Amino acid sequence: MLRWVKGHGTENDFLLLPDLQARAGLTPALVRALCDRRAGIGADGVLRVVPATGDRDAPDGAGPARWFMDYRNADGSLAEMCGNGIRVFARYLVDAGLAEPGELAIDTRGGVRTVWVDRTGDVTVDMGAPVLLGARAVGELAGIAVRMPNPHVVALLPDGEPGRAALGQLDLSGPPVVTPPLPDGQNVEFAVRTGPHALALRVHERGSGETRSCGTGVCAAVVAAVDAGGAGRGEPWTVEVPGGRLTVCWTEPGPVLLTGPAVLVASGEMSADWLSAVPR
Amino acid sequence: MLRWVKGHGTENDFLLLPDLQARAGLTPALVRALCDRRAGIGADGVLRVVPATGDRDAPDGAGPARWFMDYRNADGSLAEMCGNGIRVFARYLVDAGLAEPGELAIDTRGGVRTVWVDRTGDVTVDMGAPVLLGARAVGELAGIAVRMPNPHVVALLPDGEPGRAALGQLDLSGPPVVTPPLPDGQNVEFAVRTGPHALALRVHERGSGETRSCGTGVCAAVVAAVDAGGAGRGEPWTVEVPGGRLTVCWTEPGPVLLTGPAVLVASGEMSADWLSAVPR
Repeated sequence: MLRWVKGHGTENDFLLLPDLQARAGLTPALVRALCDRRAGIGADGVLRVVPATGDRDAPDGAGPARWFMDYRNADGSLAEMCGNGIRVFARYLVDAGLAEPGELAIDTRGGVRTVWVDRTGDVTVDMGAPVLLGARAVGELAGIAVRMPNPHVVALLPDGEPGRAALGQLDLSGPPVVTPPLPDGQNVEFAVRTGPHALALRVHERGSGETRSCGTGVCAAVVAAVDAGGAGRGEPWTVEVPGGRLTVCWTEPGPVLLTGPAVLVASGEMSADWLSAVPR
Repeated sequence: MLRWVKGHGTENDFLLLPDLQARAGLTPALVRALCDRRAGIGADGVLRVVPATGDRDAPDGAGPARWFMDYRNADGSLAEMCGNGIRVFARYLVDAGLAEPGELAIDTRGGVRTVWVDRTGDVTVDMGAPVLLGARAVGELAGIAVRMPNPHVVALLPDGEPGRAALGQLDLSGPPVVTPPLPDGQNVEFAVRTGPHALALRVHERGSGETRSCGTGVCAAVVAAVDAGGAGRGEPWTVEVPGGRLTVCWTEPGPVLLTGPAVLVASGEMSADWLSAVPR
């Protein structure tokens, strides 16, 4: 029997697989089959819920992590961290009674992260400190490279309506040309300032193409906008992405906090026939 | 509480919604939300399971239909019939104990259809008789128009490897140009004869673009191949589509029978939070 919960954060969607005794494991073939949107259930990735070893603390003192987020991409490969995924993971822990609401440490392959989650509503995650890497060209646009810690290049379009119109017309069917590129490639964000502390954003992710939302990309865009001047650190920004709305606060001095929705959509179980057809 | 079963036939996927007392109804907004592949579960359409009125018999004497397939497209609009969907519907009826295996009449907006379904394995459906409508050009290729009863134009590529290579290279990102077009538009099939009774096929559907499979399109392609000569009616053909393999037999004289897999993938229920956020 394989039970799951499906959830999404700004339409970045995940299958949560509770494996509370860490007995079931997970093969790349099973991840691919589950994430197949037609022959399986479909998701951007799988979040297996397993106990943490307990010997890794959150950097900011949220205490030892009780749960480890075993995150796999839809292609079956291992993944480190995901700002949308970890919010859905935290919402599930609280809903399922596996954690108390409040401040919560969650272990990931990218280190222990602190999450703030109430019984309902948005979830906040500490995304760590950004590293600014300097100017890049994105086609004809000026951009800036930011590690979050994965690699991003953010291009700021003109403010207000002209930028909004240009944003809507961008062709993101292929990867934008970044000069010079980062050594391990990059996600590219196109952002428009739509208010004193507001951005609208589209994102092209390495290997995935344009997506509905990218948690680290939204953080990188706010870092780039603050760096471009005209607004201090420590103020919350709202960022509108195709899949919804997120809030970002680059604390002074310190990490970037990402706040946004985490929706548990449905729960279910795979059929025995389907399971028996998945290659081992 | 909203319970569902997800299934697919050659990767044409559906959410079955049992509504055995026909009390729940279904709104276009709910269908769209369920079929949303990121914020919902995701499917090509919804198959609501409701009792038939019982006064409509199958044309070939399978008796009165007990169940009505209330089929909706992913955009919430009503749909008549679907050769892949009705096989999944029949598999569900038998698995759920709502029908005995064997010959089964199922009511649809396109009329009562006869289905043959065992406890396991492939499912066969009577797709009705085709109507040949004469020659059409599909770009540079010769084609033939076939009502099944929805409108199709089939273009036959050269036999064997040359045709297979051409099939793989087709650009189906936009609708193929048919001259003269059918009055209500058409689905377009590109088919290659890969054996005495075998086709490989890709399909572009009106309003959906290229799909993994199209039940009526596969039937139309076999009708076109038989019409093109070199094989008698009454012989079973295998048709390879991107989503799997189907078998088609154009009986003499009479309807086209479509046989293929029907897989129940998973069962589950929507969360209360998700349901409460769906517009009424």
